[in-house]
Amino acid sequence: MNAEIIAVGSEMLTPERVDTNSLYLTGELNNLGVEVVAKCVVGDQCDRLADAIRQAHKRSEIAILSGGLGPTEDDVTREAVAQALGRKLVFHPEIAEALERRFARAGRKMAEVNKRQAFVIEGAEVLNNDRGTAPGQWLEESGYAMMLLPGPPHELKSMFERECLPRLKRLAPPQAIRTVVLRVAGMSESDLDQLISPVYGKYENPVTTILAANGEIQVHLRARCATEAEAGALLAEVAAPIEQLLGDRVYSRNGDPLEVVVGNLLRDRRATVSVAESCTGGMLGERFTSVSGSSDYFVGGFITYSNAMKVELLDVPPEILEQHGAVSRETAEAMATGARRRTGSTYALSITGVAGPDGGSEAKPVGTVYIAIADDAGVYTEHRRFLGDRQRIRTFTVQMALDLLRRRIIGRCA
Amino acid sequence: MNAEIIAVGSEMLTPERVDTNSLYLTGELNNLGVEVVAKCVVGDQCDRLADAIRQAHKRSEIAILSGGLGPTEDDVTREAVAQALGRKLVFHPEIAEALERRFARAGRKMAEVNKRQAFVIEGAEVLNNDRGTAPGQWLEESGYAMMLLPGPPHELKSMFERECLPRLKRLAPPQAIRTVVLRVAGMSESDLDQLISPVYGKYENPVTTILAANGEIQVHLRARCATEAEAGALLAEVAAPIEQLLGDRVYSRNGDPLEVVVGNLLRDRRATVSVAESCTGGMLGERFTSVSGSSDYFVGGFITYSNAMKVELLDVPPEILEQHGAVSRETAEAMATGARRRTGSTYALSITGVAGPDGGSEAKPVGTVYIAIADDAGVYTEHRRFLGDRQRIRTFTVQMALDLLRRRIIGRCA
Repeated sequence: MNAEIIAVGSEMLTPERVDTNSLYLTGELNNLGVEVVAKCVVGDQCDRLADAIRQAHKRSEIAILSGGLGPTEDDVTREAVAQALGRKLVFHPEIAEALERRFARAGRKMAEVNKRQAFVIEGAEVLNNDRGTAPGQWLEESGYAMMLLPGPPHELKSMFERECLPRLKRLAPPQAIRTVVLRVAGMSESDLDQLISPVYGKYENPVTTILAANGEIQVHLRARCATEAEAGALLAEVAAPIEQLLGDRVYSRNGDPLEVVVGNLLRDRRATVSVAESCTGGMLGERFTSVSGSSDYFVGGFITYSNAMKVELLDVPPEILEQHGAVSRETAEAMATGARRRTGSTYALSITGVAGPDGGSEAKPVGTVYIAIADDAGVYTEHRRFLGDRQRIRTFTVQMALDLLRRRIIGRCA
Repeated sequence: MNAEIIAVGSEMLTPERVDTNSLYLTGELNNLGVEVVAKCVVGDQCDRLADAIRQAHKRSEIAILSGGLGPTEDDVTREAVAQALGRKLVFHPEIAEALERRFARAGRKMAEVNKRQAFVIEGAEVLNNDRGTAPGQWLEESGYAMMLLPGPPHELKSMFERECLPRLKRLAPPQAIRTVVLRVAGMSESDLDQLISPVYGKYENPVTTILAANGEIQVHLRARCATEAEAGALLAEVAAPIEQLLGDRVYSRNGDPLEVVVGNLLRDRRATVSVAESCTGGMLGERFTSVSGSSDYFVGGFITYSNAMKVELLDVPPEILEQHGAVSRETAEAMATGARRRTGSTYALSITGVAGPDGGSEAKPVGTVYIAIADDAGVYTEHRRFLGDRQRIRTFTVQMALDLLRRRIIGRCA
């Protein structure tokens, strides 16, 4: 079954506000095996909203509307649904009376305008609101369901849970959804897609999505089956060959980010790490220490932004800086070695590069970075050129540094 | 003029992701006097997307699509627009060649699949992407405009600013919109609102919005008038008394973030700064060095996560750590003094605290932080308790450290 979500309210069409109700609703629907295939935000305009409702009704079995059930003129959801479905609005005196009692309990007289909330679409069931004044509505006809829910999140959640979930469970065919998320480092989105599309391309189920952000790629596989066991088997069938193709480029299967994976590897080995950062200026240390408990393995580091600090704090020989420059293999190695000696850590990671937009040269263009790892076995260095702006170059560099350490620890970089 | 925004991508129909591009786009459109009347998210399904495009095209003068321009099979925006408008897709060899060159510059061979990105809708202009591989497209016909933009926010923003804004300005009716953004540190959103609402509450134009995020508050004043001069005069009338009420808590009137403001203050005085970070683990250094040219004033720093490193790298006396603990005024002071001595910087900023969620105690609960500044005149320390999760505590701490340095430099903290 497919669902669409329509959020109603002009305030959600400003630059400051997002509709968060749809995230909650999507999670709940997915748990029932219902896919959300589209969502939209429409302002307080009856005709435009009626249009959106007709579209959703035409395409999807379930439509959920949130907001626009208040008492004022610009609360148009009831009218729009009636118009879209060609039904009448019927006044329910018992709702008006309940509202009047609610106001009286708070020591206030109900404004006349609140009676708008007592109009119900012909054929709809009234959904009780235990957190506010706006009642919800449930419309059902031959496998189609539409519900009108209040906009405030705590009212919506309570109503959805109490009133809608039980009704939806009755409608939705029993179905199990299972997901695998593979997090991958060290390759581009298009290279990865070229490698694994021959596998996932053969399957409509599970649905495969590839997401790239901040130097990291995620492969999402989502299987929908009649039972948990079937979904699990199907996922295993598709994920296994993908994992084999990706090999040790997959660093996480449970959603853990790279800094957590690397941290766990270090902790398991009772190993420690320190950092020496030039162009990333602390970003690598920040990633390590974003994990609670990272003091188990992260001892500290050096931000050596100037040449003088590289010499002072890390004992980088001045002649290396003179001969090879601050952005060089030799400097990266000396930084890592110096950091390891000064901190006594098992591993030391160093970064030096040109983050730009200024400071590039023909020999060392913007995006040039050297990353070195020092450990008992010596020093290992990688050289890369990243494209993009300062923020992107720094983020990709840090991601690669973390992945190099991961590969070094598991013995995959010599 | 009315606009609709369509975000494309199944990943934005999951319970975890929201479309944030539309917020940026809405702000920019509003500045042109264009109203956003609806927005929607559609998955990677060509037919459904084509449907949504037809609807938007029917109802609104401007349609903006974001995402779905990547190289893979599930990038369907090009096809869907062509289908909705009944136009052909035309292969542009020059785009394919530019992509190949881009890959070559990074020392890689372009995957065959990337050629999909070289298909352009009949009659469309190609929009240059200076941050990624996906070119955008601009379609215009008798007062209607439709644009296809890439999904990654930094690509979308750059393209929209460079390529779309000038074209939209030509289409939109002339209207003067002027904005003042005051960035404020050191007070809560509700305190600020209580202070300035008596001023802005009297005006419907300019529209005043107060935004709070990451330890910073922004006050946006937006005036819409027939002429620039009128808008400027109106803004001045409202902004002046607000600025007077806020005093030196306003650190920026031109959108500059705190790290840029502090950097400029340092550069103007030919002063330098170093950092010594415990619980923030490099985040303060990262903020300083996120600014291109920060090597003018930022020399470097120490990430002293363990006690041993505080002693080793910063000469914090072991007896201070024993007597007062790592999270204490005395340790913060010794860290700042040590960093200044080791680096020879004009100012040294230190941070020590409990970022949580573990490590809190009754005397020093999670969120307790000490920030010290050492300079020629001595050491100045502040103690604060921030609420929230690890990320929030660290972000607020770094923001406060930057603001303390700003106030110290301009002589407002003794």
